[in-house]
Amino acid sequence: MQFQTPRGTRDFLPEEMIKREYVINTIKNVFIRFGFDPLETPVFEEFKLLSKKSGEDIKKQIYEFKDKSGRDLGLRFDLTVPMARVIANNPQLPKPFKRYAIAPVWRYEEVSAGRKREFYQCDVDIVGSVSMEADVEIMTTAVECFKDLGFRDFKVKVSDRKVLEGFIELIKKKIEPEMKLEFSSAEIFRIIDKLEKIGVDEVEKELKKLGLNEKQTEKLVEVILVKGNYDSVLRKGKDLLKGIKIAEEGLKELEEIWKYSKIYGIDKYLVLDYSMARGIDYYTGPIFETEVRGYEKYGSIASGGRYDNLIETFGGRPTPATGISLGIERIIEILSDGKKFNLEKTKVKLFVASVSEELKKDAVKIALDLRKQGISCQVDLMNRSLGKQFEFADSLGIPFVLVVGKEELKKNVYKLKDMKKKSEREVKLDQIQKLIS
Amino acid sequence: MQFQTPRGTRDFLPEEMIKREYVINTIKNVFIRFGFDPLETPVFEEFKLLSKKSGEDIKKQIYEFKDKSGRDLGLRFDLTVPMARVIANNPQLPKPFKRYAIAPVWRYEEVSAGRKREFYQCDVDIVGSVSMEADVEIMTTAVECFKDLGFRDFKVKVSDRKVLEGFIELIKKKIEPEMKLEFSSAEIFRIIDKLEKIGVDEVEKELKKLGLNEKQTEKLVEVILVKGNYDSVLRKGKDLLKGIKIAEEGLKELEEIWKYSKIYGIDKYLVLDYSMARGIDYYTGPIFETEVRGYEKYGSIASGGRYDNLIETFGGRPTPATGISLGIERIIEILSDGKKFNLEKTKVKLFVASVSEELKKDAVKIALDLRKQGISCQVDLMNRSLGKQFEFADSLGIPFVLVVGKEELKKNVYKLKDMKKKSEREVKLDQIQKLIS
Repeated sequence: MQFQTPRGTRDFLPEEMIKREYVINTIKNVFIRFGFDPLETPVFEEFKLLSKKSGEDIKKQIYEFKDKSGRDLGLRFDLTVPMARVIANNPQLPKPFKRYAIAPVWRYEEVSAGRKREFYQCDVDIVGSVSMEADVEIMTTAVECFKDLGFRDFKVKVSDRKVLEGFIELIKKKIEPEMKLEFSSAEIFRIIDKLEKIGVDEVEKELKKLGLNEKQTEKLVEVILVKGNYDSVLRKGKDLLKGIKIAEEGLKELEEIWKYSKIYGIDKYLVLDYSMARGIDYYTGPIFETEVRGYEKYGSIASGGRYDNLIETFGGRPTPATGISLGIERIIEILSDGKKFNLEKTKVKLFVASVSEELKKDAVKIALDLRKQGISCQVDLMNRSLGKQFEFADSLGIPFVLVVGKEELKKNVYKLKDMKKKSEREVKLDQIQKLIS
Repeated sequence: MQFQTPRGTRDFLPEEMIKREYVINTIKNVFIRFGFDPLETPVFEEFKLLSKKSGEDIKKQIYEFKDKSGRDLGLRFDLTVPMARVIANNPQLPKPFKRYAIAPVWRYEEVSAGRKREFYQCDVDIVGSVSMEADVEIMTTAVECFKDLGFRDFKVKVSDRKVLEGFIELIKKKIEPEMKLEFSSAEIFRIIDKLEKIGVDEVEKELKKLGLNEKQTEKLVEVILVKGNYDSVLRKGKDLLKGIKIAEEGLKELEEIWKYSKIYGIDKYLVLDYSMARGIDYYTGPIFETEVRGYEKYGSIASGGRYDNLIETFGGRPTPATGISLGIERIIEILSDGKKFNLEKTKVKLFVASVSEELKKDAVKIALDLRKQGISCQVDLMNRSLGKQFEFADSLGIPFVLVVGKEELKKNVYKLKDMKKKSEREVKLDQIQKLIS
């Protein structure tokens, strides 16, 4: 009987792990350069914590279970909620607290080619700063990750939950002040967020189904359809939402973001798009999504926003916070699709082969010595002939083979075979490191 | 309302994460040098897979749960079982397959100071080789990890499940051939494994409780009490277990291990100890445990052994395999206890401070430039005064502060303050990298 990985999860064999590690290390190095420190939390949390501000859609996707003493737990669905709990529990931490986390999360979703139930998030968050500069530093960190990963043409879509709240005010107060609306902001947000996927007509249909009348629907669609450069979209937003306090606060935030983005040099990537709303409940201010041009079908590869109330909700002091999360699975798909990977199939650099069985211990000693120099190498553990040792090294993709024979040992000069170039040269042991790296 | 981490789990704040990453990276570098490649599997597996060869004790400790469509799953309790499943499912992988994995596992155990329910294992395994050289390479990899971590005085305890099976034969056949024993080998192993913890008298008591008579108990205790250097313990084993086929196979394995350990240069660390039995069911040959001398109370920091039947049990071709697992939590405790850590509290190397608010954007630009050089730095995101910026940098443990003022910008020469030495010097921007690393 064979066992498979549970539905929505998968194994990563060495060749794929090497791609994943390349992407993770590239991202992690940017995170560190931008002054973020690591934080790790357990994979499961109290279910009550996870479900508190997740929103209904995600709440249903949490892997929920009881431990052996009946505690109601769940696998984390993101890294932001656990981090906010840490801040709530540790008020002594100096602010701003800048942390990164790169770790798996779990959501019980419909499984498709690009969507698994276990996936990695790479998060940076800045906790404690009310300034929009923090949001721009967050976006800049993501932009720098994209550049280091080799992406050249991408956009960072920006919107603001306060502006979106303003939309509700707009259709409530400005049009039919007496009408009592029966839906939540979250429901509206969920519909307008689908604009790109389902188109204007469907969005209008869904809004009407929710109870909006013709005029309300028209007004709302007018706002979310505003297109153009950041300045002009901002201006149009100001015209349409004039006098609505919450919207004006949001537009001020978006104006600040525009100002800082020029200082941080990311203004050319920014697109202001009022139809972008994000799915999670805890956002309170600016929100971000990013797309690589030409690869829009893969969706957003880094998303986030400001969540100024979350830490307080978890019992902490009122503490502003903002952050972004990069998804490595989508990034890997785009890099693979664009044939951007140029990596070996193995981390092993060298196979130390022995000509005969009695020389095996000499091969081992050479390998141990090379390992002390930091060279990744393997020796034969199967009592194979020299030919079979070569075959094995080749099947694994090991780029070099060193041949240990009697003559070689005597002269202390060995044959180093380049498996790709099919070339061979004579080397001393202390030359190898340079030649194979 | 505040939320805590679920019982037996904990958060790791940046200062502790930096220690953990140091230990993990040290171990990982050794794993790579010894020619192991990375493999990753999901955190949960089918419960049936996990419980198949875990043994009763561990089976009870599995975090078991159902997913939303009723599949019976469990969080992995080790990294060996999932790896064996991968091998069973992927017969195409070239052999030997050498993989490492560094990841958390979960066991619902009694929680104590040193024992949590979520902990990391760092595993290397060699799959496909029947040779004891593979076992010795595994032990050598662990020994090299210890050395790189700064441990000087440690021992690798070796035993063999076949020899232990021989004990059962010994007390069955040699003493009372007619007596039908009512207990499993696993039960005997579990008792003798406790020798160090509970002492001879208690072991004798428990053996008798299991149904062994006086002579059987005496004989068994005689074997497990054999002490001395590897050669003499091996010889004594041969005397005591003469004629018992399974034991002779095991002793042959231990002899091979001794031979290879001399070639690999680890013979001085090896201690042959027949009372060491290991808790998990799937071992079939040599088994290993390791202790740092002076820190024995922390228990074994790396344990493993050969498990030649596991892959077949999971539906794969019959495939021999051996491996070891290092526990980073215990290693960190020992390093902390021995005051061996000499690490910064933060990964941030530099704080770029601005003298006044209007110079903040200049500080940002300098920081962005330094980040491009790979320097980890932070800028002020709180609109703080210069004094408060220094206080913040100090509270975080950032070792250097660069001061950006009007004069400095004009001359392109800045003050670099060493926060530990309380010293200051004038620097150009391109000198900083060298000075702070």
